[in-house]
Amino acid sequence: MAIRVEQSTIVVPGFRFSGVAAGIKASGSDQTARPDVALAVADEPAAAAGLFTTNLVREAPVVVAAERLGSGRARAILANSGCANACTGEAGFAATRESTAAVARALGAPVEQIIPASTGVIGVTLPAGRIVEHAPLLVASLSKGGADRFAEAILTTDRGPKVVHARGEVDGQPFVVLGIAKGAGMIHPHMAPLAPHATMLAFLFTDAAADAACLGPALGRIADATFHQATVDGDTSTNDTLVVMSSARVPTNSRSRTTLASPVEEAMMLVCEQLARKMVADGEGAEHLVEIHVSGVSSNDDAARIARTIATSSLVKTALYGQDPNWGRLLAAAGRSGVAFDPAKARISVGGIDIVEGGIGQGMEREAAAHRVMSLASYRIEVVLGEGPGVGRYLTCDLGTGYVRCNADYRS
Amino acid sequence: MAIRVEQSTIVVPGFRFSGVAAGIKASGSDQTARPDVALAVADEPAAAAGLFTTNLVREAPVVVAAERLGSGRARAILANSGCANACTGEAGFAATRESTAAVARALGAPVEQIIPASTGVIGVTLPAGRIVEHAPLLVASLSKGGADRFAEAILTTDRGPKVVHARGEVDGQPFVVLGIAKGAGMIHPHMAPLAPHATMLAFLFTDAAADAACLGPALGRIADATFHQATVDGDTSTNDTLVVMSSARVPTNSRSRTTLASPVEEAMMLVCEQLARKMVADGEGAEHLVEIHVSGVSSNDDAARIARTIATSSLVKTALYGQDPNWGRLLAAAGRSGVAFDPAKARISVGGIDIVEGGIGQGMEREAAAHRVMSLASYRIEVVLGEGPGVGRYLTCDLGTGYVRCNADYRS
Repeated sequence: MAIRVEQSTIVVPGFRFSGVAAGIKASGSDQTARPDVALAVADEPAAAAGLFTTNLVREAPVVVAAERLGSGRARAILANSGCANACTGEAGFAATRESTAAVARALGAPVEQIIPASTGVIGVTLPAGRIVEHAPLLVASLSKGGADRFAEAILTTDRGPKVVHARGEVDGQPFVVLGIAKGAGMIHPHMAPLAPHATMLAFLFTDAAADAACLGPALGRIADATFHQATVDGDTSTNDTLVVMSSARVPTNSRSRTTLASPVEEAMMLVCEQLARKMVADGEGAEHLVEIHVSGVSSNDDAARIARTIATSSLVKTALYGQDPNWGRLLAAAGRSGVAFDPAKARISVGGIDIVEGGIGQGMEREAAAHRVMSLASYRIEVVLGEGPGVGRYLTCDLGTGYVRCNADYRS
Repeated sequence: MAIRVEQSTIVVPGFRFSGVAAGIKASGSDQTARPDVALAVADEPAAAAGLFTTNLVREAPVVVAAERLGSGRARAILANSGCANACTGEAGFAATRESTAAVARALGAPVEQIIPASTGVIGVTLPAGRIVEHAPLLVASLSKGGADRFAEAILTTDRGPKVVHARGEVDGQPFVVLGIAKGAGMIHPHMAPLAPHATMLAFLFTDAAADAACLGPALGRIADATFHQATVDGDTSTNDTLVVMSSARVPTNSRSRTTLASPVEEAMMLVCEQLARKMVADGEGAEHLVEIHVSGVSSNDDAARIARTIATSSLVKTALYGQDPNWGRLLAAAGRSGVAFDPAKARISVGGIDIVEGGIGQGMEREAAAHRVMSLASYRIEVVLGEGPGVGRYLTCDLGTGYVRCNADYRS
């Protein structure tokens, strides 16, 4: 594979981006303030698909975005931070329609092709007027190199923007996939097509040609292998959104077939894996990105279930914060997952150091070595529970005082 | 009903209790140190039943206790803190057998009638020698009024002992139920008969006559209505144990029938409810005991599932810590529970103050009033999701920096 993953912003032929401060965040609408409205525009209507939160409580922008993506085509993504516009009833829907209509007018595009996304506090109606007022500026400041500004404008509690791109070759032609995401809390994405769910927002832009009929199923596979194996706090948002747009500048054999050209899907997968890792590493208050690998059980589903139970255990996550190789908590979490295994066969290693073999602790010397590994920003814990073929993994982070501080402030 | 619940220690005819410092806890074996081995003895072999953790990873004492309670009779409970004796393989089983054998010898009772229970750090083998050495002292110091000492000896991270008793009348005769529990972390009990699971330990002693055949099923109903609706951190322990013993000093009609005399079951229920509340209120680092009530969905199971999802949400629990009536998080947790409801019908009240009606926030004034309620040590949140008949509840506590500090210390 000739795919390279890169961490800087890049131009994707056929797309332009902008971000402005519209005063939705408390920081205000002075253009030196934190930007809070982002726009991504395709030069022509583009093939597009989306996945949305499966949370029953879904925000107005998610419902509208899912509805509009039913056509398989989109011209632009209009995203804002500072306000999720969730649990806001009819007023919320009106605000989403009004703000996307203003951008549609400024672009000269049908409103049905403007895909909304919102993130921020729940229960407050989007102040559509601020977006209407700033729509001309949003469109005027669009540029091919504006992805960084877009990325900044969708951040909430994130420590920094999350932008990843990958280059590849398909049928002898170079293409690029650009991914932009936000998300640090309420992160446990579980998305489905047209079935809204997250306050993870992630957007993919590619110049490789692809029909919406291919993009949708590919997005499902990609999310299952990346975002759906990531958690910060086990809480699935009302707003999770993953949208992909293709400007079709690079022809591929996949056009009008039902599977995406494999180098394109692989590039998207790599980009989403990096975005998922960035989101978990940037988990609210988190200091460690930890990959939990589980194997040796009878199926991949069982392994994933155990990995998820470990990855969402408060006792495990506080031990990760304390850099404590407290394997009893790992094993106890596995034991309550509902999956059958023989604890006496368990092997647990932290960064390659076996601290449990045959279900028994291997002593303080190994634990001290594992403790040192656990000071790293990123490491891997392996849990082998027998000889079965099932494998699974989950990305998680530690739960520390920073998470509590971030989430315990009284909003008023 | 003539049942009164009282919060002080009491004598239960037919039982004696003791607690000694055997040096299993780091505080040492000087008798002014924290006690760590507890003994409860029935004057005669007593009818007994138990429920144990459903965690697949179960400690040696749980396996042995479940096996021995198969007979429906027990003479004594031998419990220790400071060491869970879990994940310790054959050495752990040998230690449990050796320590109970020493107590059996000192009592002149068959070892099969000594029910073991352990709590503390996982992965360390019980130092049986210390219990063997202290068995004569344990037996010599038994007294009818020793329940407080027993209660103290089973504590780990608890802030204080948990002792509750209830008096009632059955067939015109007075009886008493005494409950003693411990548990502050790894609390999300889910127990089943002979299927080990918890680091909740709870023991019930009554003088009301009851056959083991009645006690077992009653214990299941009681746990389902109390301990199984309580959570501190969502982590089910490897050691959860609930054991009941009857000295049969007060005859009841239930003898040799399959249902417990209803005043006796009711008294046990009241005692366990108070013990469950004490455990959650004493959750590691917790400052608030919060009862989450859910109603209006189609079944009790659905309501319980939503209540559990809310009660275990890290975002909800950090908001409880921050005394923040952040109803968006409550509604988002309900929305990811997997239960169908119409968010537009949601009503949420905190201490009787409606902060959400028809799925919409009711403004800052009400939230400020709710914020004041949330400063209380104990309050109730009601979530009404429609007109369905299903009701459910869960006891939970806040997740604060105290919990993190308690669980993040590196053990070495």
